[in-house]
Amino acid sequence: MGDRILVIGGVAAGLSAASRARRLDPEARITVLERGPAAGYSACGLPYMLAGRVSLASLLTHPPEFFCERRGLDLRLGQEALEIEPARHRVRVRAEGSERWEHYDRLVVATGARARWQPSKLRNVFTANTWAEAAAFDAALRGGDLRRVAVVGGGYIGVEMAEALVLRGGLEVHLVHRHGALLGNFDPDFVAPLAGDLQRLGVHLHLGTHVAALDGPPDGRVLALETSAGALATDAVLNCAGLAPQSALAAAAGIALGRTGAIAVDEQQQTNLAGVGAAGDCAESRHRLTGGAVWTPLGAVANQQGRVAGAHAAGRPAPNGRRARYPGVLGTLALALAGTGWGRTGLTLAQARAAGLAPAWEDVEAGDRASYLGPVPLRTRLIYQPATGRLLGCQMSGAPAALAGRLDVAATALAAGFTLEQLETLDLAYQPALAPLYEPLQIAAHNALGR
Amino acid sequence: MGDRILVIGGVAAGLSAASRARRLDPEARITVLERGPAAGYSACGLPYMLAGRVSLASLLTHPPEFFCERRGLDLRLGQEALEIEPARHRVRVRAEGSERWEHYDRLVVATGARARWQPSKLRNVFTANTWAEAAAFDAALRGGDLRRVAVVGGGYIGVEMAEALVLRGGLEVHLVHRHGALLGNFDPDFVAPLAGDLQRLGVHLHLGTHVAALDGPPDGRVLALETSAGALATDAVLNCAGLAPQSALAAAAGIALGRTGAIAVDEQQQTNLAGVGAAGDCAESRHRLTGGAVWTPLGAVANQQGRVAGAHAAGRPAPNGRRARYPGVLGTLALALAGTGWGRTGLTLAQARAAGLAPAWEDVEAGDRASYLGPVPLRTRLIYQPATGRLLGCQMSGAPAALAGRLDVAATALAAGFTLEQLETLDLAYQPALAPLYEPLQIAAHNALGR
Repeated sequence: MGDRILVIGGVAAGLSAASRARRLDPEARITVLERGPAAGYSACGLPYMLAGRVSLASLLTHPPEFFCERRGLDLRLGQEALEIEPARHRVRVRAEGSERWEHYDRLVVATGARARWQPSKLRNVFTANTWAEAAAFDAALRGGDLRRVAVVGGGYIGVEMAEALVLRGGLEVHLVHRHGALLGNFDPDFVAPLAGDLQRLGVHLHLGTHVAALDGPPDGRVLALETSAGALATDAVLNCAGLAPQSALAAAAGIALGRTGAIAVDEQQQTNLAGVGAAGDCAESRHRLTGGAVWTPLGAVANQQGRVAGAHAAGRPAPNGRRARYPGVLGTLALALAGTGWGRTGLTLAQARAAGLAPAWEDVEAGDRASYLGPVPLRTRLIYQPATGRLLGCQMSGAPAALAGRLDVAATALAAGFTLEQLETLDLAYQPALAPLYEPLQIAAHNALGR
Repeated sequence: MGDRILVIGGVAAGLSAASRARRLDPEARITVLERGPAAGYSACGLPYMLAGRVSLASLLTHPPEFFCERRGLDLRLGQEALEIEPARHRVRVRAEGSERWEHYDRLVVATGARARWQPSKLRNVFTANTWAEAAAFDAALRGGDLRRVAVVGGGYIGVEMAEALVLRGGLEVHLVHRHGALLGNFDPDFVAPLAGDLQRLGVHLHLGTHVAALDGPPDGRVLALETSAGALATDAVLNCAGLAPQSALAAAAGIALGRTGAIAVDEQQQTNLAGVGAAGDCAESRHRLTGGAVWTPLGAVANQQGRVAGAHAAGRPAPNGRRARYPGVLGTLALALAGTGWGRTGLTLAQARAAGLAPAWEDVEAGDRASYLGPVPLRTRLIYQPATGRLLGCQMSGAPAALAGRLDVAATALAAGFTLEQLETLDLAYQPALAPLYEPLQIAAHNALGR
């Protein structure tokens, strides 16, 4: 009999962990407990489903049978872990009304995130972070008597959802955000044009507006948001006011949390308890530039962390003998909003200042190809440390197709610890129809070096 | 009076050098001698002009007055440097039939490249490497009695020109290449599909076909290429059979050439003669991965080398005190051919083997975004050294818009000296509509690591 590997959570990190463990240990008995009705789906695709662009089913990377039959995982949907008992290597599980204990030799906690704001339960207050939540919201919208929707929160989920609801059609969409700038993970001045883009798309924007309470009649239906700018009548609320790690289950079992409130892990995604790993939105990460613990609930991070946790759950190295490690995050994030791409990696100015790095920045607007072949402009902000020339961060905005790869160049240069001069003198592709003689990033580095 | 800086050559490297020198030294007297009728144009755009997509004038980055009036450069067109006399710090120049000597305190040689194959002078045998050559070819094509054109040489210039002539319309275009695979800077098996793409576009391909001679009647008009596969009748020949550095002028003055035949330079683009720099297609480069001297006649390299040569010609550091250096090439190259993008950086398998690096490779075909949002496939070949995990090279093919940035990620990772594991665990952008959960490069690295 192989080792018993138990994974709590069956979305990005959990299924990555289980799949990786299976790959490295064909004998292990691997069980994945997923609370919801679906596993292995693209949570990042939920806005596209709500926009009516893709079906919910299309967001499944594989059907459940795939994980069971092809990957040999015992994937169980609708099963909630209630308690971890580390001393006895077991987890209490509730499914279909009854409870049981599942034993494990090694455990991976991948319980994800939840909405940070938990308003009192009222009808027509929704979240859409999971398959089940998004499906319920979609069903309510299909019901047809919701015409006005207020999205609360202007972080990346809030703005993606607001756009999706406008594109869905037939809705009056309000976006209420407590800060004066959207997307707090960007510099406020850099991201400022997004507000106009969303308004032109048809989003009713309420920036700098704090939601004090939800008002409704006794039947629980929301009638108004009480905000710092007055009452806002609405038929439904979509709560996108931030996420929090689902770490309570782990904490109750004595698994140490970090100062972010997420589970503290080392580079091998291991917690303070032997044989217990954690990965994804419930776990912390190390920031590659500051070395500090951060909480970065993003899909790609969850998948990569899951792989590492799974490799260690398998308890054996990869075929080439390497020990898996996760080297940390840069917070690389891309968005496509109202036809414009947005991207960021590394530290914002505020983050760099908070880390004591005394940053400076260089803004460049330059084309994505030769001037005579119809370039589209890209705005690029390069953040760096003048004292050392070290790169600290990058933000970009422009044509979506031109953006993702260029943002990844910045992320790669940041991971390499490059200086402005190393960035400026990279040997990058130049082809008049595909890429300009000097990439915007290189122009920014050149200018930052004093021209 | 400021120092006298003389630059021989007014295209990519020469004008970059002169402009950089001006930026650092407002007092210098800077003269640029350009043999041809135009300076500061995009040579890489000449195929687009021949295709009829852009005008020749649009390829000028700036009009000549810009360099004179705005940059304060004494730019002289139609002036050919005949001899460098280093002992007396002077260059003999021919212009409009007469000769004179130009004195300098510091000299930059940026004489470019020429066609390697120099067939006997026959009418309707063209090259199109410079503004003047391309203009002459264009004029001949406009004459209207050339219907069949044979492009000789299937390197990147030859294939771009063959495509351009097909797109121009009204021509029967033959491409004759001595090797069995096009684009010798790619792995032959990787680039193989390009042949079919070009044929479907309408190019008549003659691979593995060596041109032995050009035959023509006494009036000099070409009638046939004598090839290893028989005679090929044609109205005109476009000679794209490789380039050679224009280094004879320098060599005659005692400037040392490297084993590639191009001018040997150090990281500061300085030759063996004090005060004499060289940059662009006439100069060698150091390969970043092998450390060896290579000759890489590409526009972006020429511009960057020109900047460095110009900074040293100015004889003073940049405002931030740095001394300019050019850290070397990866041979990064992108092409857009028949609607498909092609890219390469670093070493091919053959180049890596020749360097004794015992390479292996991993091929991946994967989409450029989430499966449910209509991804376009990208073929990616990652070349690495199994003994160390070190990255050695990358080749890509796929939708043009998806390619350039991704190729640059590979180039950045190569410049950083990354291993497979460092590439696999990069924090890159993931957004369903813009970029997949795992970039093809990361999938390749993962697979190469033993899955």
